[in-house]
Formats: sequence, C-alpha cells, structure tokens
Amino acid sequence: MSVHLARGTRDFLPDEAAHRHHVIGQLQEVFARHGFEPLETPAFERIETLTGKYGDEGQKLMFKILKRGAGSERGECDLALRYDLTVPLARVIAMNPGLRMPFKRWQAAPVWRAERPARGRFREFWQCDADIVGSTEPLADAQCVAVAVDALQTLGFQRFTVRLNDRRLLAALARGAGAVGPLEIKLLITLDKLDKIGRDGVDSSMAELGLGEERRGRVWQILDLSGDNDTILDGMEAGLSGGSVSEAIASLRAVLELAEALGVEPDQLRIDPTLARGLDYYTGPVFELVVEEPRIGSIAGGGRYDDLVGIFGKKAVPAVGVALGLERILIVMQELDMFGPRTDTATVMVAVYDEALRLEATRVATALRRAAVHTDLFVGSGSLRSQLKHAHAKAIPWAVIVGPDEAAAGLLGLKEMATGEQETLTLDEAIARVQAYERRGS
Amino acid sequence: MSVHLARGTRDFLPDEAAHRHHVIGQLQEVFARHGFEPLETPAFERIETLTGKYGDEGQKLMFKILKRGAGSERGECDLALRYDLTVPLARVIAMNPGLRMPFKRWQAAPVWRAERPARGRFREFWQCDADIVGSTEPLADAQCVAVAVDALQTLGFQRFTVRLNDRRLLAALARGAGAVGPLEIKLLITLDKLDKIGRDGVDSSMAELGLGEERRGRVWQILDLSGDNDTILDGMEAGLSGGSVSEAIASLRAVLELAEALGVEPDQLRIDPTLARGLDYYTGPVFELVVEEPRIGSIAGGGRYDDLVGIFGKKAVPAVGVALGLERILIVMQELDMFGPRTDTATVMVAVYDEALRLEATRVATALRRAAVHTDLFVGSGSLRSQLKHAHAKAIPWAVIVGPDEAAAGLLGLKEMATGEQETLTLDEAIARVQAYERRGS
Repeated sequence: MSVHLARGTRDFLPDEAAHRHHVIGQLQEVFARHGFEPLETPAFERIETLTGKYGDEGQKLMFKILKRGAGSERGECDLALRYDLTVPLARVIAMNPGLRMPFKRWQAAPVWRAERPARGRFREFWQCDADIVGSTEPLADAQCVAVAVDALQTLGFQRFTVRLNDRRLLAALARGAGAVGPLEIKLLITLDKLDKIGRDGVDSSMAELGLGEERRGRVWQILDLSGDNDTILDGMEAGLSGGSVSEAIASLRAVLELAEALGVEPDQLRIDPTLARGLDYYTGPVFELVVEEPRIGSIAGGGRYDDLVGIFGKKAVPAVGVALGLERILIVMQELDMFGPRTDTATVMVAVYDEALRLEATRVATALRRAAVHTDLFVGSGSLRSQLKHAHAKAIPWAVIVGPDEAAAGLLGLKEMATGEQETLTLDEAIARVQAYERRGS
Repeated sequence: MSVHLARGTRDFLPDEAAHRHHVIGQLQEVFARHGFEPLETPAFERIETLTGKYGDEGQKLMFKILKRGAGSERGECDLALRYDLTVPLARVIAMNPGLRMPFKRWQAAPVWRAERPARGRFREFWQCDADIVGSTEPLADAQCVAVAVDALQTLGFQRFTVRLNDRRLLAALARGAGAVGPLEIKLLITLDKLDKIGRDGVDSSMAELGLGEERRGRVWQILDLSGDNDTILDGMEAGLSGGSVSEAIASLRAVLELAEALGVEPDQLRIDPTLARGLDYYTGPVFELVVEEPRIGSIAGGGRYDDLVGIFGKKAVPAVGVALGLERILIVMQELDMFGPRTDTATVMVAVYDEALRLEATRVATALRRAAVHTDLFVGSGSLRSQLKHAHAKAIPWAVIVGPDEAAAGLLGLKEMATGEQETLTLDEAIARVQAYERRGS
C-alpha cells in the first residue's frame, strides 16, 4: 500500500517543526511585549460566515465540508475551513460585545485555500496576524507597523524597509485619471504589478484600459514622485484632489512620526505612492515590510480596514492590522541559515550498556532530567556501538555510558561525541559538566 | 445578521488562549527533557489514508471535504480532517524510511470528530501524544509512562496513580472464560464499564453475554485480585493460561521496575487487572493515569500497539505511546484554579495624556519595551480616566502617565493600579521599578 500526503500539504519532521516552534515562540514574546493578546478560533466555520465577505472569489478557494447525515448524499456542505484569520476575528468581535476596545489580538494558525499548489504555495499554510480593533487613531496604525518591525528584528532580519501609502490616495489617483467604478479597481490592479511588469508594462496596461496619454500622465506625475517622505507627501497633496486626500496625508504624517517614536528607524520608513496592496479591503493607510538584503521582497504587510470587522454586527468597527508572512519568513530563515542550533534536542544520550545494567542507566537518565538536562535515554535494542551511532546521527553532543566497572565504582563514563574523549566521573560531576555546556549553548 | 460558531467548536478568548499556550509550552519542555522531538502533520489527509485503519467506525466520525471541481456536484470527497494523531504518524513513518529508530515524537494539535456535541465533548479538540516507534523494549513502555507522569507533575497535579495491565492478559482472561472472537471484544467492553456500572452491573452483563456462573467466577477470580503489585501479578500468572501470559507478566514486571527507575514513585504504580482500555488497538502493556485528588478520573493513557504503525509499510513497526487528555487537563486546571497569573499580559499601560503629549507617551512605551517590559500603549481615544479604567479592567498592574508637568521636567508618573499611589520618577527609575516587579512575579 502506498501512501501520500494530500496535495499541497506538508509534514514537518523534527528539525523543521522545531524551527517553526522557535519562530512562533519568538513572535509570541514580541506580541506580548507590545500588549497584544492571544486568540484562538476553530479551523472550520459555518459556510455562511465565510461567504459573508468575500463572495464568489472566496467560495472558489474554500475547502467545504460535507454535511453529516441528511444532505450528504446530495453533496450539501454546511461548514468550510477558514481561509484567513480576519473573518473569524470579525465573528469573534460580533459575538463578544463585552470585549474591551481597543482589542489588540494576535493569532498564529493554519489556514486552508484550494489553490493550485506551486513552489512556495501550499493548500495548508500558517498565517500570523496582529490586529487592533476599535481605534481610529493613527497611533494604532503605527503600533501595527512597529510590532511587525520588532518581530522581524527579533527573528534576526536586519535590512528592511516599511513602504507606506494610503488607500484614499490611491482612490484619488484613480479618480484624477478618470478611472471610477470598476475601472478604478482595474487600474489599481495594474499599478500593483509595477514591480513585476515595469513602468512600460504598466503604461501599456493603462492604455489598454482606455486611459489616454494625458490621464496616464496625471498618474505618472504621482507615481514618479521622489525625494524624502515630506517631499513626496507634499507632492501627493498638491497633485491629488478630493475630500479625503488631506485626511489621508495627515494620517500618513502622523503614522510616520509615531512609528519613529515606537522605535522604527526614520530611514526605514518610506512613503511609496506606487504601493497598492489589498485593493478591496483597506480603507486607510497601507504598508508593507520589504527585506532588502537578501532581496526577497515583501515579508509582512497590512493596513487599516474599517469596513470589515463590523460586517456581522450592527455598527462599523474600525480596525488596523498586520500579517506576517510566516511561511515566507520560515523559508527565508532556513535558506539563509538564520536558525541557531536547536535548543530543544537532547544534550545527553544515556546508553544502555547491557540488560544487566539497564536499571543503572535508567537511574542516571532520571537524575539528569531532574537537573533539567534534556536527556535521551536509549530505549531501543542494539549494541553500545549502534547506540553511539544513534547519538552521533542525532548530533547529541554527550553520551553517558555506565559499564560494569563504572557501576561497581558508583561512577559513569561521559563521552564528548565530537572528540570521542571519555572521562570517568561521578554523577554530580557529569551533571555539572553537561549543565555548563547547556548554559554556554555550544 | 446573526453569526454563530460551527456546532461543537469553541473560540478561546485571551485568558483561555493564554492558559492553553502555557500548558502546551510546559509540555513542550517536558517532552524535550525526555528526548522526544516535535512533529507536525497537516489537518487533512487523503480519505484512503484515514480509512486504512478504522473502517466504518472511523468513516462515521470523519469530517469529509468536498472535491474541488469535477465530482463536487455529485458530493464526492477526496480528503478528510484527521480524527487522531496516530494514523498520520503511521503515514509519516511509512513515507520516511530514513527516520532513525527508535523515533520518539510528540505532537500537540487539534483533531476533529463528527460526534454529537455534549458537555465536555467537542467536534474540534486538541490531542497531545508522545510515542516511541521502533522499539519492543519494556524500557520504551516505561519511558512513555514516565514522560506522562513528569508532564502532570510539571503542570501541578499532585496525587495521581498509574494503573497498568496488559492486553495479552485481558485476552487470556476472556479465553479462560470461553469468550473468544466477537464475544471476547464484548466481554472486554463490559469490563471497561466496571467503574461506571459496578460489580453487579458487570456480572449481569456477562450473564447476558451467555457466560455461566462458573465462567464468570473465573473472570472474577482475576478481577478481584488484590494486594501489592507482585501479589496481583503472581495471581494473574497462576490464574491465567496461554502462550503469552508469562511474556505479558514479565513485561509488566519490567515496566514497573523501569518506571520506578525513571522517577515514578513506587506507590503510584498499580497493576489493575480490570483496566481494559483501547480494546482493538493495543497489543501489550496498557496504562492510564488517574488523578485521585481531586477525583476527576483518567487524564492520560496509552500502551503498546505493535500492529498499527506498520499498516502503510511492508513490515510491522512496534510502537508504544501515551496520549495526554489536553482538553480534560485544561478544564480541570481551570476549575481548580491551578494557573498562576498570566505571564504574557502587559505589566504597564502607558496612557496618552492628550494629543500634544502623544509622542512623549509613545517614546516612553518604546523605552519600556526595549527593556523587555510587556507594555500596552493605549492606542484608542478617550480621557485619561477612561484609559485608567482600561488598565484596571485588564488587570494591568502599573500605569505610566506623562502629563505636561512631568514632560517639562523630563519625568513621568508611575501609578500602581492596585493602591492608586503615584510617584514621579525618571524613566530609568520607572523601568527599574517595573522590572523588579516582573522579576518578583507579583
């Protein structure tokens, strides 16, 4: 019988699973440091909850669950796996009116999408979101930028920038080019491809959308703005018009100032008029964290979405959030060897010399564990030689061997696997030696 | 629009989510201390993988996922949510022949079962398993007992015992009473109810199964054995017959001795001839951890199952494991108030005195976070009074207020929320004060 994983899913064997746990543990600490609280929601939701927001597009991506009992024979489905963590958050907010606002929550959990699997694209993958619900203050936007920056720094990323723009400025840009209604969305989708298809590609796409040269010129006038953040903001304020432009500019100025006060380096913050992410979702400032060295592109992003969290309730609920690209982060950290040695593996393997000395070995393992030493007692069968091979293959740095002579003398053999050197020590001496090694972390 | 959770599922709001994270973090450390390694597998598997073992019974419990595209209109399903962590483990073993044996893995993850929801029974719940694959040694069985005992002790459970028996002794018991084939399973299911329906209940159930008085007497002769472990084992050895009885007795004697050497107190280990868990699955020693005070019954259990892990491969793969009843543990710890105060929540809330002093407040929050203090900067709008109410409602012990006088003097106000006392301090003094509080943990 041959077995396979379901398409687009992965197992994580110990090394990789340990790396994932490490990253999530680090993020957990960063979120706590910034006052975000954990939330957990179920893997599946009622289909009507999930279709509330995303309509047909979401429908196609959903893994739907067959009804149990009546209806199953007709292929009826009542549940579906969540495909993001935002719709469940909106449901939680609607169902828990007593939650204190602003509510700052983080959640790191798998989501599922029935997309065609490809390199780096999976049907089960983890999202890691931090959101602030119930505040319209730019300080909330800046807080989301800052927690993401701290997260990446804590994980060891060094050179990255935060690109910022505002959904309202993009709308004004489209309006100024005469692109309203469906054409606005099409224009913004085109702009979103600037990195991929370049200036000429975007220009011809705009022409195909029916934008004449003069209108395209008005778009380029904004997109081509350069200089420091103030200069670009001044240029956008001058070149765009409409009710919410000055509000948007003021928001961005406040977010820049506050993000800096929250510890983001000034030269990490860049207003970018071409940034056009999450078109149908965001309502205010949007941002993206781009790692520059190595050049791996966007690794986190977010923005303000004041119309989504309220969908299940009676009134609008402002919200702003950031999503860390957990899978991307993990792939990059693995490729760049950013993980230190695993800290969860055994420091010592206690070998079982023979049947007669099994009990001695077991007692030594217990003493080591009581001293908080990560200890792998060899529980298989096999010669001492094969046991030491096991320790070597698993990169366990120390082995303990209690042979007949050691047992008779109340001692044990402590072998450093890298050098092969073995010393005869008391139990306490061995514990001290290994604890010192664990403290040094090498 | 009214929204609901899917039936039988739960949200975990911050307090509860933090407790769950705490317990899983503690278990993670215990598993590492005992040399178990983490493994992660996907939420869904191909249906044929899941039906491999459990047949119709498993089928009924599965949440099946509708095919995407062709076949969906006929209600065809190709995937299903995992309903335990053991079948995925068997698949991983079959697909990764290079894994070194013995392979000790732990996994804590949700599973899904389409059971009728009831008090304490959910359709999504977490399992937490530690298994050793590839060893037939009783030391492996004892290691599984010991890691479970260490886990419960680490979580703060104090009085609990380990009941042990052996599947082969139960088979011999049934055989001795003339209950073979389907009748054997029925008899063992009956015995499993001893705690619930009592001695008389079991006796009449056995009579209903067609067991005459003399046969029932032979069963009671074993079940009624009492005394210390040696006495009971001697009694079983004398009263049962068949090829594997002496092997089973020898296994149990070895497991007892080794579990003790692994740190389990001798009087925590009790041979119990009535223990009959997991009837169709186990092949050797079985055990159960029972918490006696408070009297909440079994909270972890496991045993040897040498026929399951090999189902997807060419050869048998011995295995022994333990499952910690994570949901049960969480419910009990919550009911008994076994959780200390949350350690992930903010120690300080920094209030924003007014718009003009927002930047000052933000900078203070950044300095606190850089000193690793968990800091909740208030990012909403509202009076100072309402901000302090927020800190109080969230049980944040300290508040920082930077008013105009403090800002002018380069100082800040540090308010102890419990007493209402406020001091004017330098930033460094405030950091030192709060860090000292965090270290004291109170």
